[in-house]
Amino acid sequence: MSTLILLRHGESEWNAKNLFTGWVDVDLNDKGRDEAVRGGKLMKEAGVLPDVVHTSLLRRAINTSAMALSEADRHWIPVKRSWRLNERHYGGLQGKNKKQTLDEYGEEQFMLWRRSFDVPPPVLADDDEFSQVGLPQYADLGDEMPRTECLKDVIERMLPYWESDITADLAAGKVVLVAAHGNSLRAIVKHLDGISDDDIAGLNIPTGQPLVYELDDSFSPVEKGGRYLDPEAAAAAAAAVANQGR
Amino acid sequence: MSTLILLRHGESEWNAKNLFTGWVDVDLNDKGRDEAVRGGKLMKEAGVLPDVVHTSLLRRAINTSAMALSEADRHWIPVKRSWRLNERHYGGLQGKNKKQTLDEYGEEQFMLWRRSFDVPPPVLADDDEFSQVGLPQYADLGDEMPRTECLKDVIERMLPYWESDITADLAAGKVVLVAAHGNSLRAIVKHLDGISDDDIAGLNIPTGQPLVYELDDSFSPVEKGGRYLDPEAAAAAAAAVANQGR
Repeated sequence: MSTLILLRHGESEWNAKNLFTGWVDVDLNDKGRDEAVRGGKLMKEAGVLPDVVHTSLLRRAINTSAMALSEADRHWIPVKRSWRLNERHYGGLQGKNKKQTLDEYGEEQFMLWRRSFDVPPPVLADDDEFSQVGLPQYADLGDEMPRTECLKDVIERMLPYWESDITADLAAGKVVLVAAHGNSLRAIVKHLDGISDDDIAGLNIPTGQPLVYELDDSFSPVEKGGRYLDPEAAAAAAAAVANQGR
Repeated sequence: MSTLILLRHGESEWNAKNLFTGWVDVDLNDKGRDEAVRGGKLMKEAGVLPDVVHTSLLRRAINTSAMALSEADRHWIPVKRSWRLNERHYGGLQGKNKKQTLDEYGEEQFMLWRRSFDVPPPVLADDDEFSQVGLPQYADLGDEMPRTECLKDVIERMLPYWESDITADLAAGKVVLVAAHGNSLRAIVKHLDGISDDDIAGLNIPTGQPLVYELDDSFSPVEKGGRYLDPEAAAAAAAAVANQGR
């Protein structure tokens, strides 16, 4: 038996502006910082206290985990980071307004890019102002450096890290916090709960709401879907995510 | 040749109240957060960019490093933490006002506790409200858990971490940031610069000022004392530290 906590970063400067973000490394805004602190308070009150944290390389997840952990008095735990926990690379949509994209391309194309399992947005050019090609944190990726991704791509690059690093900490009996993003966390939840390629489109993970899974020795959930520490707030926040771009 | 950056945390809630802090885990105040960001800006402007960060287990150093690194766009680097980089344990003085302590015990005793090399303050009782005995982050320390420390004690518990973990990263060619405290950083500087037990009393390390050492292959400084990225601000800040408690 082991415990996994999933935490999606709070609102960022670009969530609030309704822009596709992906790998663009924007920071949290004041609301997002408040969400991070509240997430930490929920963990502390529930006594669900991480022994180790895994984050993406993006500052909105890194800063969310730091603020939540400090609030829960767990700022001192070991930290591990991987690009494999990054948000989905949104390709040519990075930096674009969601509402304008919806108006320009129509509902069908918009939802295909946002929620289809295996249709990625157009590729982002390496010389685009919103490209991350050449940044030092991605220098070791080589051919694995994405220029766009669908959810299927995210699952494929996330799973090796789940199987090597995250399950190693779970197997050692540690309470593991993964602080990451809407799509990298959907990838984990899809894997854990055995959600089909079609049904994953309907799953929206709320920001700043700790989602706790108890896992058995083969890393399968004891209870499918896990449990939110604040179920009412999580349901309201998930509905808000589903309506983004409207 | 390798590069070491030492960064003392910015002003904390208790620095501002003029209380002895030691291992009490207080947070930065607004001024301290500004200092952390400015420290990161100095590293970025100078192009002195850490590849890995080592911090204490105390949130004022952890949060200083996080804010400085995010400002320098190095928030994504690997993080290592150790109690061996903690501030000096101030024993029975933890939680006491520096000015009141000076008035109560007189200049000689006050300076002996603050600056003597080998005279620790009185032991802090385990049931004192400012004791850290029993906190989970120190559960593995056993007999090494301090109840008071002089600078000599800090050097003795810091050096094993320097020799195992920090020099390993330096030997691997990494630019290493150590984000820590007045006394754990004085311990490192004393070791690096070969400062005598008597002379170390006169060394004051300013808060939020990155101090850069270029080290040779035996980890000796190419230039004794290193260099501050903002020498004028560092000199003014060091003078302010020397006058604490007045």
